[in-house]
Amino acid sequence: MSFRASVLTLYPQMFPGHLGESLAGRAMERGDWALETVQIRDFATDRHRSVDDTPAGGGAGMVLRSDVLAAAIDHASPPDDTRPRLLMSPRGRPLAQDRVRELAHGPGVVLVCGRFEGVDQRVIDARGLEEVSVGDFVLSGGEPAALVLLDAVVRLLPGVMGNETSGEFESFEHGLLEHPHYTRPQTWEGRAIPDVLISGDHAKIEAWRRVQSENLTRERRPDLLKAKKKPPQG
Amino acid sequence: MSFRASVLTLYPQMFPGHLGESLAGRAMERGDWALETVQIRDFATDRHRSVDDTPAGGGAGMVLRSDVLAAAIDHASPPDDTRPRLLMSPRGRPLAQDRVRELAHGPGVVLVCGRFEGVDQRVIDARGLEEVSVGDFVLSGGEPAALVLLDAVVRLLPGVMGNETSGEFESFEHGLLEHPHYTRPQTWEGRAIPDVLISGDHAKIEAWRRVQSENLTRERRPDLLKAKKKPPQG
Repeated sequence: MSFRASVLTLYPQMFPGHLGESLAGRAMERGDWALETVQIRDFATDRHRSVDDTPAGGGAGMVLRSDVLAAAIDHASPPDDTRPRLLMSPRGRPLAQDRVRELAHGPGVVLVCGRFEGVDQRVIDARGLEEVSVGDFVLSGGEPAALVLLDAVVRLLPGVMGNETSGEFESFEHGLLEHPHYTRPQTWEGRAIPDVLISGDHAKIEAWRRVQSENLTRERRPDLLKAKKKPPQG
Repeated sequence: MSFRASVLTLYPQMFPGHLGESLAGRAMERGDWALETVQIRDFATDRHRSVDDTPAGGGAGMVLRSDVLAAAIDHASPPDDTRPRLLMSPRGRPLAQDRVRELAHGPGVVLVCGRFEGVDQRVIDARGLEEVSVGDFVLSGGEPAALVLLDAVVRLLPGVMGNETSGEFESFEHGLLEHPHYTRPQTWEGRAIPDVLISGDHAKIEAWRRVQSENLTRERRPDLLKAKKKPPQG
């Protein structure tokens, strides 16, 4: 069975968005993966179809109601659904490539997109929502984050990328940032491709690239080097 | 003058995407910000309209050519353009909320979306492209990252959010993750809203929320607490 994504949102019209184009879009057309959206508002029970209410204890903004969101989750993901349930939230653990790879090897994913000030904590607890963050910045809602997560996952599904970069050194895949790239023209605006890259000496080229990767990582992301040295956790 | 974003891409049809909906979309209709896409392929010079070539030194994938991309950049962002030029790339410095706020206070942004294996290093150097990453994962291209960055920036532009959450405590705005939220119903599936939140004692509520934020940050993101203790850098 192919990878199946269910997205719970108040803005289903934001999907598939860029996932309908290019590699992800063609893979969807071939049936390599499927995307379903669930309108949370359809599970509101009052005549105003309200999904949110003011925060208990006061404060600005509105909070997504637990009863409405739980009904939407129970519809999209019944108890026998083995797919992980993720809540896109800046409070979550940062998404990293190893989690992306794990998701791509699984049956699919249920993505809950928050809006307003937040989501009632009780539905997060009761429905086992795993809070996931795509970065240390605040978005208008979970939808852009869900689109990014799905893009990262879908490109790893079998058959999606073809041979385009398979087996290739990529940033994070080996815990280092990628080395610089060059291509024709040989000289551009007086800048030449580094000699080593046109030497034809593959061992030297590999060594040069490795050093470049390590230097770049040390300069920009010393945290990645520290993480590499630690034994794997959990 | 309003905030102006220029996006250089091989997939202009991916824009405005979700930015055409909801808050960002209405703000765009009002003229609070503008989005222009530039098709990089329009600046190819050969009869195949090629934009990429094989990497110097060998390896899989294709590299975006410096001459073609530079022509697109020079068209979208002439030398007197004061907007920062960002290249969306997993090799970049991680985007954070303080950089988002900085961009929102500026005249706009020029966003270059890479595809293929990478971008020729010489155009990054020659055109002063600042590499920015939205997270430690690999995307199909820079487009989803550009959409996320713009979403984060646009919501901070004057007038876009209205009073929806202005002045409110938000994750990262104070270096801590946000406390849990609750709203009606009072009891749901046997779970009650914490007593303190319905006590009406605002000092106690504030203190409780602060402790919750600190505990959550300590548990999920000890790195944020460490960063808070350091004097500001740069």
